[in-house]
Amino acid sequence: MITSVHDAALAARVQHALDRKTKPTGALGRLEALALQLALIQGRELPRLEVPQLVVFAADHGIAAHGVSAYPGEVTRQMVQNMLDGGAAVAVLARQHGLALTVVDCGVRHDFPPRPGLVVAKAAHGSADAASGPAMTPAQRDAAIAHGERLVAALPGNALLLGEMGIGNTSAASLVMARLTGRPLAECVGRGTGLDDAGLARKQAVLARALEVNAAARAPLDALAALGGLEIATMTGAVLRAASERRTIVVDGFITTAAVAVATALEPRAMQSCIFAHASAESGHARWLQALGATPLLDLGLRLGEGSGAALAFPLLESACRLLAEMASFESAGVSDRDA
Amino acid sequence: MITSVHDAALAARVQHALDRKTKPTGALGRLEALALQLALIQGRELPRLEVPQLVVFAADHGIAAHGVSAYPGEVTRQMVQNMLDGGAAVAVLARQHGLALTVVDCGVRHDFPPRPGLVVAKAAHGSADAASGPAMTPAQRDAAIAHGERLVAALPGNALLLGEMGIGNTSAASLVMARLTGRPLAECVGRGTGLDDAGLARKQAVLARALEVNAAARAPLDALAALGGLEIATMTGAVLRAASERRTIVVDGFITTAAVAVATALEPRAMQSCIFAHASAESGHARWLQALGATPLLDLGLRLGEGSGAALAFPLLESACRLLAEMASFESAGVSDRDA
Repeated sequence: MITSVHDAALAARVQHALDRKTKPTGALGRLEALALQLALIQGRELPRLEVPQLVVFAADHGIAAHGVSAYPGEVTRQMVQNMLDGGAAVAVLARQHGLALTVVDCGVRHDFPPRPGLVVAKAAHGSADAASGPAMTPAQRDAAIAHGERLVAALPGNALLLGEMGIGNTSAASLVMARLTGRPLAECVGRGTGLDDAGLARKQAVLARALEVNAAARAPLDALAALGGLEIATMTGAVLRAASERRTIVVDGFITTAAVAVATALEPRAMQSCIFAHASAESGHARWLQALGATPLLDLGLRLGEGSGAALAFPLLESACRLLAEMASFESAGVSDRDA
Repeated sequence: MITSVHDAALAARVQHALDRKTKPTGALGRLEALALQLALIQGRELPRLEVPQLVVFAADHGIAAHGVSAYPGEVTRQMVQNMLDGGAAVAVLARQHGLALTVVDCGVRHDFPPRPGLVVAKAAHGSADAASGPAMTPAQRDAAIAHGERLVAALPGNALLLGEMGIGNTSAASLVMARLTGRPLAECVGRGTGLDDAGLARKQAVLARALEVNAAARAPLDALAALGGLEIATMTGAVLRAASERRTIVVDGFITTAAVAVATALEPRAMQSCIFAHASAESGHARWLQALGATPLLDLGLRLGEGSGAALAFPLLESACRLLAEMASFESAGVSDRDA
């Protein structure tokens, strides 16, 4: 059960504080709306981002066997190692911004030895091939969602930045988008990690088959099991739990949006806790954000995933909090207002 | 004399390094172009931003007497104090990102007592009214440019973030834009700090008169003296000097763009050192950036000036440097490439 963060009296107080800061009304643009949203999520006039957690949800995808990605499936496992070793983009950005980085093995087709920064919460060793049946059984989906919920419950701090890794997962996200939004498949499918025209045509054909084979899976949780992936399901649980705990959720790109779309289809109020970091260059993402009524903070042509966009947007959230807390008012600074 | 930063061999080495990082080719979008630009400015494969300096250029404007701003002229002086006291938005953001903040009195109509963080480099006590003659004499303009050059020469580090403060300075910038680009005045004039429709109409009428009165001032330096302002002239000198020293220049919004437009009209190669932080909500800015061939990093509806957008974009520059320096390559991380 997710309660509404809306609080008209608090919103009015925060807006008044913003309007008395030493700047023309509204001159900080989207940072003002962001400050207000953060205040409402946290239920206090001076929001603070405490011990922010960037969590990368990783899994393999049965559908990858059809060559829907430009990269081989083993790259999921290799990139998990690279993140833990500190050499992946998201690891560099997490260090820059002081974000704790955790990688969750939600269903990689490999057994990692225990190591710091890695949480093993496998619901299966990879999902099944959605082009020939459901990607997950209902039991696997439910286990993954429960893993995500438990994981967030155990995290310190009050901010969750979403990241993901999984060769084939733009396919899973495209399928979820097509099913949940009812948009034509072609509007939901992109080049992922960099398919050429022939690769894109092959991906579209495989995904069309997956939609057909799983035609009956229409409700959000059914679509998630049939068309999604283990990391998307785990993230869905994470989003639901984080929203119920009034953590700030920073959404990265196309795949994390899939999890948010499922979560908010189940619990629309979860959207109030979501901040959309960036518009991905992955075809379909901008359209999906629009359908969800979300306006991303950044538009830098990123299409890397991992949580890289969420990490890059993080300082803007921090700025919104600091401006609210630290800027002087016209009164405190003795600056003449326009009505003076 | 500004030399070209272009170096084909260096560019090829940096691009190769970017392409071997553990990510799909081009997946970091604009951050990759940014990393390349920073490397070329600094002439090295691993650029670093050292002791970055945010400099706010402040001055008063004779044209403000016509009520072209929503705020009274004394606000220039008050906001300089507020910046030095740490309560202005730019002071908050500079603290957040570890930017040294200096305010330069280029021509405020007030004599500040000496204090840390303030540099007095006055070419006049405010500019004259451009609606009844040139805003500056040639001697004042030249003094202001020289102040900007000397100021930058004395700054530590290798990165200059531009900020400004001056009631009436969107008027000066609009006039410079109209004159340098040849665009109709209406495309160059906006609401500044928040004029209503009547205020905007008044501002347009005053600016039309200024263009007429100063019709003969067409060359960049003539236009700068006749239509610009003391902070814009000082910044023009700062930009020219910074580019000649191959410092990275981070351009903020509409008014700082005016200085860059004059500087690059004089020395087109200065543009190579400029990174445009954001598209201001001030009407005309996006169009001017387009005319200059510049694509800003952020688009957050900001219209505050002060250098606030430059400060907000700074972490993206830092990210570009760090990704180049710290990301693993496919080889070093043992990650399979798409051609494997």
